[in-house]
Amino acid sequence: MPITVVGSVAYDSIETPAGRRERCLGGAATYFSLAASFFTDVRVIAVVGEDFGPEQEAVFTRKSIDTRGIEHTAGKSFFWEGSYLEDLNEAKTHNTELNVFASFEPKIPDAYRDSDFLFLANIDPVLQRRVREAMPQVKLVAGDTMNYWIKDHRSALLEVLKSLDVLLINDTEARMLAANNNLVQAARAVMALGPRFLVIKHGEYGATLFHNALPKGKGAELRAPALPLEQVIDPTGAGDSFAGGFFGYLASQPELTPGALRRAMFYGSVMGSFACECFGTERLQQLSRAEIDARFQVFRELTHLD
Amino acid sequence: MPITVVGSVAYDSIETPAGRRERCLGGAATYFSLAASFFTDVRVIAVVGEDFGPEQEAVFTRKSIDTRGIEHTAGKSFFWEGSYLEDLNEAKTHNTELNVFASFEPKIPDAYRDSDFLFLANIDPVLQRRVREAMPQVKLVAGDTMNYWIKDHRSALLEVLKSLDVLLINDTEARMLAANNNLVQAARAVMALGPRFLVIKHGEYGATLFHNALPKGKGAELRAPALPLEQVIDPTGAGDSFAGGFFGYLASQPELTPGALRRAMFYGSVMGSFACECFGTERLQQLSRAEIDARFQVFRELTHLD
Repeated sequence: MPITVVGSVAYDSIETPAGRRERCLGGAATYFSLAASFFTDVRVIAVVGEDFGPEQEAVFTRKSIDTRGIEHTAGKSFFWEGSYLEDLNEAKTHNTELNVFASFEPKIPDAYRDSDFLFLANIDPVLQRRVREAMPQVKLVAGDTMNYWIKDHRSALLEVLKSLDVLLINDTEARMLAANNNLVQAARAVMALGPRFLVIKHGEYGATLFHNALPKGKGAELRAPALPLEQVIDPTGAGDSFAGGFFGYLASQPELTPGALRRAMFYGSVMGSFACECFGTERLQQLSRAEIDARFQVFRELTHLD
Repeated sequence: MPITVVGSVAYDSIETPAGRRERCLGGAATYFSLAASFFTDVRVIAVVGEDFGPEQEAVFTRKSIDTRGIEHTAGKSFFWEGSYLEDLNEAKTHNTELNVFASFEPKIPDAYRDSDFLFLANIDPVLQRRVREAMPQVKLVAGDTMNYWIKDHRSALLEVLKSLDVLLINDTEARMLAANNNLVQAARAVMALGPRFLVIKHGEYGATLFHNALPKGKGAELRAPALPLEQVIDPTGAGDSFAGGFFGYLASQPELTPGALRRAMFYGSVMGSFACECFGTERLQQLSRAEIDARFQVFRELTHLD
């Protein structure tokens, strides 16, 4: 079933212990769509500037990602510059230029309106809500956010949370959103704000799935590991790639069963692990479905007793 | 098969967000033996002062732990005071009094000499080595250490590592010992120093098992989760309890198969999770084997796809 994703398509200049790359094609919607495209049809809503040409467009269209919702306007695309020199788990931002993103008004192509799945990547919750309300027919809505919106745009964010089925955030964001340092208690508090399912991402330690029907004492539904990687080239976009693998796999399944959710968590981890193996979206662009399924088996071996 | 453990038996005054307890019976050898005692016979080598009486002795003997190697001397037992008020993952030490531990000379009772398994808990590597050399007949030796020995007693520690089959340390210790921030590379470097198997503990995120015969690209053998706990009362001794569950289970198995190692990792996590549920060793003292096996199933459900 097709997924519509709204979020950023951007350029990133990235420095890691493995080197430096200037102006890689990036942005949450880019990583998400590439990762999800291995499992289902993906449609993107974003805004880009004049620096986004046929070469960048082809990154999407080669994976049959629908780009009719990518608006082209005068000016430059969103630009981010950051490094991970001291700690690969935490980006240090050196420069952010919103550019055309500053006045982003998501426009939903009519052809997107029959989408069954909607992913609201990390953007202004006011825009997330607008897209959500414009697509009332979707069957499952997932979303992401970040510390900036949690701290300074809380009331707008709370409105969005009410309309989400699944929220994907990291440990720090979960603790901040719930104002509670215990992860299980924080998870319950966040789910009380709306989402039935919560995925808390732990970076190199994997991710945990919580469900609001969880019996007391069980803690969580599933903990998926991350793959211990011999070399992390660039962790940028790993979380968005996780989201793409997770939600893409769910959209490919006939029903939202507990088994489908479990496998989706593992596919999320699989896609996150690939994203770290090259700079930018390079690895996701080259990837094959056979490589994805082989790594899914590696994850199974890494966690299973028998 | 019986395990001999050498390490500290101590008193801990502990403050956590759940409250404060004065002079709980603690020490690495105490947590380790209690956790391991559910799986196999355990024999302790330690030193205590005049403040260790029949009541404390009974904590061990009720679990059929052999205390003939606990030496009683004039003076006070090792004492530690610490808190976990800001971060449950990291103890803040307020006071350490070595007391009788300062002149600890491990003495091995003759009755211990047929032990098949030896655990060298976190003590001076000079003492670890002495015990190791005095028990050349043991079949499997595991050990623990900490940042202090890694930084300031490196050459003595390197001698011990040569004689270990299994080393259990945490992320920070592994990175420090290998001088490498990448966990997989650090694991390979640490195993090159001696241990065939390495267990790296990630606190609330679980633990990873590495084996020195690991093929390139596989990363690790197994990643066991930790249980997401609704309430962590006191994390003191969780790592030693993990070690006790891990090594105790291995000692109960006829052979060191890959399957036995995998289950041992899960039993380690199980015992670590129980240790956090009460102050000090209280939960380990009350525990039943049925509770342990029920929680083992919870861990299976938490990680398994099918």
